[in-house]
Amino acid sequence: MPSEPDPLSATFAALADPTRRAILARLTKGEATVLELAAPFGISLPAVSKHLKVLQRAGLITQGRKAQWRPCQLSAGPLKDVDEWLERYRRFYEESFDRLDEYLQETLRESKETEHDDRS
Amino acid sequence: MPSEPDPLSATFAALADPTRRAILARLTKGEATVLELAAPFGISLPAVSKHLKVLQRAGLITQGRKAQWRPCQLSAGPLKDVDEWLERYRRFYEESFDRLDEYLQETLRESKETEHDDRS
Repeated sequence: MPSEPDPLSATFAALADPTRRAILARLTKGEATVLELAAPFGISLPAVSKHLKVLQRAGLITQGRKAQWRPCQLSAGPLKDVDEWLERYRRFYEESFDRLDEYLQETLRESKETEHDDRS
Repeated sequence: MPSEPDPLSATFAALADPTRRAILARLTKGEATVLELAAPFGISLPAVSKHLKVLQRAGLITQGRKAQWRPCQLSAGPLKDVDEWLERYRRFYEESFDRLDEYLQETLRESKETEHDDRS
């Protein structure tokens, strides 16, 4: 039997699905019931409930106790952990961006020089 | 047959494993061969190769063409997409932090007032 995943793995696994990400996006606008969450996706209530369970286990949503409605709320704590995990990788994609920027600056300078040469 | 996942789902799925995250962390220090990547984990080469394939399919690593060594390199582009995806959630965990900060400030103020009351 596979052991319980570590919290960060559970978060990433929960985010690896476009429907679950869309549910989180919907919850940024405020709490919503399972019915409200199911509506835009055209999927069955059991399918939505399954997605909600994955999100809940990862700590990304909480579900109220009010028997009939049980509205879901976003719980963004685990996303902060993702943000912190990203920290050590930032310089790698920021560097790539810097290199692109350098290249564009270089190209711009060269094209200006050419322009200048043409005039002289 | 399940369809190919969208790029962001593929990235999150690739990150949902502690060994694959450790491989990425190792590659922040520079390129490494499959043998070098396998060494610290005490897992078989085929198991490491499987992890590398998942990372490669998600665009998180690239593997050189030099037949014998084929060193792997970090490719951080997809992590930038994760960073951008996080953007709309940031205010939720930053707000939570602000609320904690407010609570601490409040507690501090109250404890100072108590101190003051004790003296007067």
